[in-house]
Amino acid sequence: MSDGTRFDGVGVIRTKRDGGALTPDQIRALMRAYMSREFAEEQMSALLMAIFWRGMTSAETAEWTGAMIASGERADLSGLGRPSVDKHSTGGVGDKLSLIIVPLVAVFGAVVPQMSGRGLGHTGGTLDKLESIPGWRPDLDPAALLEMLDKVGGVITAAGDEMAPADRRLYALRDITATVESIPLIASSIMSKKVAEGTQSLLLDIKVGSGAFMTDIDQARLLGSTMIEIGQAHGVRTAAMLTAMDTPLGRAVGNAVEVAEALDVLGGGGPADIRDLSVAEAEAMLQLAGIDGDPAKALTDGRALDKFREMIRAQGGDPDQPLPASPLLGVVSAPRDGIVRRLDAYAVGMASWRLGAGRSRPGEAVSAAAGVICLAKPGEPVAKGQPIVELRGDDPGRLDAARAELAGAIDVGDEPAPASPLILQRIGL
Amino acid sequence: MSDGTRFDGVGVIRTKRDGGALTPDQIRALMRAYMSREFAEEQMSALLMAIFWRGMTSAETAEWTGAMIASGERADLSGLGRPSVDKHSTGGVGDKLSLIIVPLVAVFGAVVPQMSGRGLGHTGGTLDKLESIPGWRPDLDPAALLEMLDKVGGVITAAGDEMAPADRRLYALRDITATVESIPLIASSIMSKKVAEGTQSLLLDIKVGSGAFMTDIDQARLLGSTMIEIGQAHGVRTAAMLTAMDTPLGRAVGNAVEVAEALDVLGGGGPADIRDLSVAEAEAMLQLAGIDGDPAKALTDGRALDKFREMIRAQGGDPDQPLPASPLLGVVSAPRDGIVRRLDAYAVGMASWRLGAGRSRPGEAVSAAAGVICLAKPGEPVAKGQPIVELRGDDPGRLDAARAELAGAIDVGDEPAPASPLILQRIGL
Repeated sequence: MSDGTRFDGVGVIRTKRDGGALTPDQIRALMRAYMSREFAEEQMSALLMAIFWRGMTSAETAEWTGAMIASGERADLSGLGRPSVDKHSTGGVGDKLSLIIVPLVAVFGAVVPQMSGRGLGHTGGTLDKLESIPGWRPDLDPAALLEMLDKVGGVITAAGDEMAPADRRLYALRDITATVESIPLIASSIMSKKVAEGTQSLLLDIKVGSGAFMTDIDQARLLGSTMIEIGQAHGVRTAAMLTAMDTPLGRAVGNAVEVAEALDVLGGGGPADIRDLSVAEAEAMLQLAGIDGDPAKALTDGRALDKFREMIRAQGGDPDQPLPASPLLGVVSAPRDGIVRRLDAYAVGMASWRLGAGRSRPGEAVSAAAGVICLAKPGEPVAKGQPIVELRGDDPGRLDAARAELAGAIDVGDEPAPASPLILQRIGL
Repeated sequence: MSDGTRFDGVGVIRTKRDGGALTPDQIRALMRAYMSREFAEEQMSALLMAIFWRGMTSAETAEWTGAMIASGERADLSGLGRPSVDKHSTGGVGDKLSLIIVPLVAVFGAVVPQMSGRGLGHTGGTLDKLESIPGWRPDLDPAALLEMLDKVGGVITAAGDEMAPADRRLYALRDITATVESIPLIASSIMSKKVAEGTQSLLLDIKVGSGAFMTDIDQARLLGSTMIEIGQAHGVRTAAMLTAMDTPLGRAVGNAVEVAEALDVLGGGGPADIRDLSVAEAEAMLQLAGIDGDPAKALTDGRALDKFREMIRAQGGDPDQPLPASPLLGVVSAPRDGIVRRLDAYAVGMASWRLGAGRSRPGEAVSAAAGVICLAKPGEPVAKGQPIVELRGDDPGRLDAARAELAGAIDVGDEPAPASPLILQRIGL
């Protein structure tokens, strides 16, 4: 394999097809052969389906991740001389936590090198949200990134082409071959980028519920432990939280509306669920980075907001410009007096997507101002006819489709639903 | 699907991946989308692996076959006004039966439109064998084919590009993606070509044993019943024989050497196993075609040989020219006095391939004269030092590799091995 003989691609597919484990040599050779186009796309897609079927061991998954990292560059942040820590969310509805946590943790001297992505479907992307801030640009060249990490500490930027290029090709292939929902493939895809970005420690926020990629807590737990194993195999101190995603986080779902809500939290206000979860995750990240600090205090004393404004300015944004706003297109109102028992996260995410906040295909433009505001959330009382949800956007023609997504998504009853915790489980903390 | 909306390729893959059955509409649409390149090769390979994993129902397999047939043309032989019948062998070592059976059945007035293929690996191809006859050409245009079927009755020719083109692409894809060994995919591949060639009835010779594609009789039985179901679904009267392939058929393995042995049988002589199996298969084919006849008699009275010579001449061959011959390169001799208990078909096939009779990749040239002659077969007595196998070929440099294939392939003992029948089972006869 490593002696220059031809790579036996069919043999590798056959081994996995028949339930065997691939050796480290085989995995490294196949990824090299894939990048050099000797192992063809149609061979890789058959292998991906065989992996979907047969799974991969922990050792295979760590090696697979390593081979993806080795397809590109792994950043070295050791020259900064400060502990680095990042977090990754598997994606939820109204999940604007990165906007809050990256500056919040950077306040305490940690380097937070967050390489982020764009939204697809019903979950939004952090870059899309930040781009609603006038002037803000996601791209930084490697030198500018290092300088900003040194001076500001926190950065949210787009992953460069040089990071895990194998993952980009594999993700596009999985997307068209129905091989996305495989724990080892999901875990290795996420972790290849996080390890390559150079962070020393990492907190994973694994969302569980109707608005999340994972609806089953056992699967979420397995994803978490798989990613932790990968991180450890590659020298990244990794821990995970499983958090609830049945109801949107906070009240705002969209792009500019989520930035506005994040600013509220950074300024010491905002919805309690977002604030509590931001503090809990920031505390966990500081713990992983070995830094003492009181994140709750940094929200109330203005330091987190100052750091956010510093970050925005460093990437060309003007935090004093007003955010784009959209007209109110319509509302969904309470059908009766009572208490909101359910406001389905997936439906709200889909409604926001229908209004223009999300995209159907990679590369599509999104509306900065469109989105959904949840005026009443589970546990809150409403009177018959009182608006529960506001639908905002630039295109009234999209209103009916957004409304249709919300049919059956809201329950109002006499009693509140049993309260469920925001943090379902901590792994490795 | 049929109303011009975009084909949901990912949805089809997902359905099969999750163990569901595809609808007839889905199967027809996916094959059309595959032929138009809307359903990409990498999507098809993921689907093939999912089919390998989850299988297909009888209804799906019949529909899949139909969709492959619909990708090209289906010949119509009804204008010939005579019953048509063909046979297909899944391939064995020393399997020259088509050379005998096609003329033998044509003697009785049946149309035998055999579209045949070339060998790959350790099993030979009927076209490769016939091409060792000076002047013989496999290709006939559709008009010449119909004329020859009308005048001669029997034809062995290459499948035209217009027949089941989807199968050709799928076969090439399965070959590089480790998805060859799937019963529904094997069955549909074979049957798409057999149904498209226009035959009204079909006998399947499913080889079982070390020298065959199928080594397990239960799998062979399943392949047979699957192909019979496909045939019936497409109006082709189909039956199957499972036949033994642990020992080479006859004594000659190669190209010209097999033609020579077939000529012996057509002239009333030759090895008993070949003669008996040819007669049994010809009888079954005549039964399927509804024709009375005595094939054994046609072998002894010269009619079968005359028909073969007529067929060869009609395709440019000269049956009076000598066949190419190769020098004897070496022998494998009996290690002791005794009775041959085992002569492994796979090893003999591989030895013949090593000598140059077979090819490693499609399109490679093969040696007409190279091959193996089995001087002593299981049940026959030998004296120590007496040659059991002759190795013939043009390239002495290949001798060692051929010998190496035969190491451990021959057993000589005091008692003969228990005799096993040539025909293991008949299905639908």
